[in-house]
Amino acid sequence: MYTLAEAQSLIEKHLQNIKFPDEPAELYDPVKYILSIGGKRIRPALVLLACDMFSGSVASALHPATAIEIFHNFTLLHDDIMDKSELRRGNATVHIKWNENIAILSGDVMSIMANRFLNEAPGAVLRKVNDVFTRTAMEVCEGQQMDMNFEKELTVSEAEYLKMIELKTAVLIAASLKIGAMLGGAAEKDAEDLYNFGRDLGIAFQLQDDLLDTYGDPAIFGKKPGMDIVDNKKTMLMITALKESDKEQEGTLKKWLTATHFDPAEKVARVIELFDSIGVKEKVEKLITQYYNTAIESLHALHVPDDRKAEIFSFAASLMEREQ
Amino acid sequence: MYTLAEAQSLIEKHLQNIKFPDEPAELYDPVKYILSIGGKRIRPALVLLACDMFSGSVASALHPATAIEIFHNFTLLHDDIMDKSELRRGNATVHIKWNENIAILSGDVMSIMANRFLNEAPGAVLRKVNDVFTRTAMEVCEGQQMDMNFEKELTVSEAEYLKMIELKTAVLIAASLKIGAMLGGAAEKDAEDLYNFGRDLGIAFQLQDDLLDTYGDPAIFGKKPGMDIVDNKKTMLMITALKESDKEQEGTLKKWLTATHFDPAEKVARVIELFDSIGVKEKVEKLITQYYNTAIESLHALHVPDDRKAEIFSFAASLMEREQ
Repeated sequence: MYTLAEAQSLIEKHLQNIKFPDEPAELYDPVKYILSIGGKRIRPALVLLACDMFSGSVASALHPATAIEIFHNFTLLHDDIMDKSELRRGNATVHIKWNENIAILSGDVMSIMANRFLNEAPGAVLRKVNDVFTRTAMEVCEGQQMDMNFEKELTVSEAEYLKMIELKTAVLIAASLKIGAMLGGAAEKDAEDLYNFGRDLGIAFQLQDDLLDTYGDPAIFGKKPGMDIVDNKKTMLMITALKESDKEQEGTLKKWLTATHFDPAEKVARVIELFDSIGVKEKVEKLITQYYNTAIESLHALHVPDDRKAEIFSFAASLMEREQ
Repeated sequence: MYTLAEAQSLIEKHLQNIKFPDEPAELYDPVKYILSIGGKRIRPALVLLACDMFSGSVASALHPATAIEIFHNFTLLHDDIMDKSELRRGNATVHIKWNENIAILSGDVMSIMANRFLNEAPGAVLRKVNDVFTRTAMEVCEGQQMDMNFEKELTVSEAEYLKMIELKTAVLIAASLKIGAMLGGAAEKDAEDLYNFGRDLGIAFQLQDDLLDTYGDPAIFGKKPGMDIVDNKKTMLMITALKESDKEQEGTLKKWLTATHFDPAEKVARVIELFDSIGVKEKVEKLITQYYNTAIESLHALHVPDDRKAEIFSFAASLMEREQ
């Protein structure tokens, strides 16, 4: 059995060895660039681990895993245009380093290249793997559209928010595991259980990300805390706060949400005080635990000896142990 | 055997019967919109005709043909953003009717949906069909990038221009025919001959488009003539003119190419005079005939009874008989 770290390093080496086309340089240089500026390669590594879990080998999974990583980076590239982000992993985004047209087109070619790598899956599962991949890819677009829609809405329900993070983030983690399982010859039920595990873990992970943005230790989490509050982002924290607040708390929250002139540090401090009085942190932590436990149940249900699940169990635990 | 018109109408009905997702509306409304505002459905109809030619049936080709049409419309949608075009087939482009982010994302989802429809190809040829499709799709992006690069270059060689129109336009026509042939069970040599026919015909068609922009009858061609000249587009006419001109003619051409203040009608008239004195029309017509004849040779080479080629022959002839 491969460890997660070994799987990540396998993917990294595989990516470095891919001979991408050179011409036109304006089309393929951004592809090489975004794939070279890092990323933890979690999704493709999960394809390998899931395949290994059932087959004891990762050979058939390397190309499809690469497809998932290229697709993921394509979505980041286009999301960065839509969100007008200037930095990605500490480097200039493609539309800043080159221009927007080049970013659109090099993203387009990455999406196609992802399909080309996926087409290397063994014939016995090719159609099924393509089916899971293309359905998931459509869902990721749906999640991004929901996320953009939320920016223009005053309120977002908990159910809508959970659906958005499921589509935007969780289904690709889920599909990575399911595709790996299919490549490893897993029974349908096992592949589905692994999908459910990935989806619920992905949701838990994204909720935890919301939590860490406000309550994380900046020295460990690596981001300035409270940025979601400054930006009025509709995270699970704010949604919970608005839902669980009394009239007075709601009024104060909405005052901060609609304020146009404010001291950012004061806004963060006051909103966190409100969160604390409403018990937002505990409520979101409880939700995270629910999703995490459901994920773990799906993992227990797999018809695979425990020692073959160990690496995925420890991956799940490590995700949830990120420093707060 | 189906006629081209029957194949086009089959595709049109098939497209109208597709149940696209409804939500999020901002993602899928533009997809429905661009597929509803027309287009001649030539490429998917060619998939059907090529399949029919070898198998006497089009059943296995309907979904892959739909994939080609969705992909083609995806490229138009994203090209329109990059070219800042406000009209497509007489209607507002998606980025104008909605906005640029929605146009990027709905284009992305169309590219993925194209792959999803292609995944319905029969198992025996699925991988090969995917291979041709994804390679071609990458080439279409390469052609678009070359086209954008040319805008910034002062001169473009004939070879570069021919490569650009091959990639941007011709290979998708070629791939439509080849994929249809593969779905119809054609031998590899026949599928390749049909590909070459489509590629050379596509190049001839694009060159003729250049010719019609300047020399076409606006009442029949449907566009205001000479717009390529006004816009300084590097078409085969201008490339030929610059290549074949003497010093004096070259000087006058470059004067018009760099002029910032001019009467458009006068510029068109003067440049056409120069084209005429250089013999540009005849030279480009000769090139078109060369590509057309090479295309027809590939069609003759097919190991298929002549009556089964008749519809494709008449399609090729009709393309070249567009009114000038």
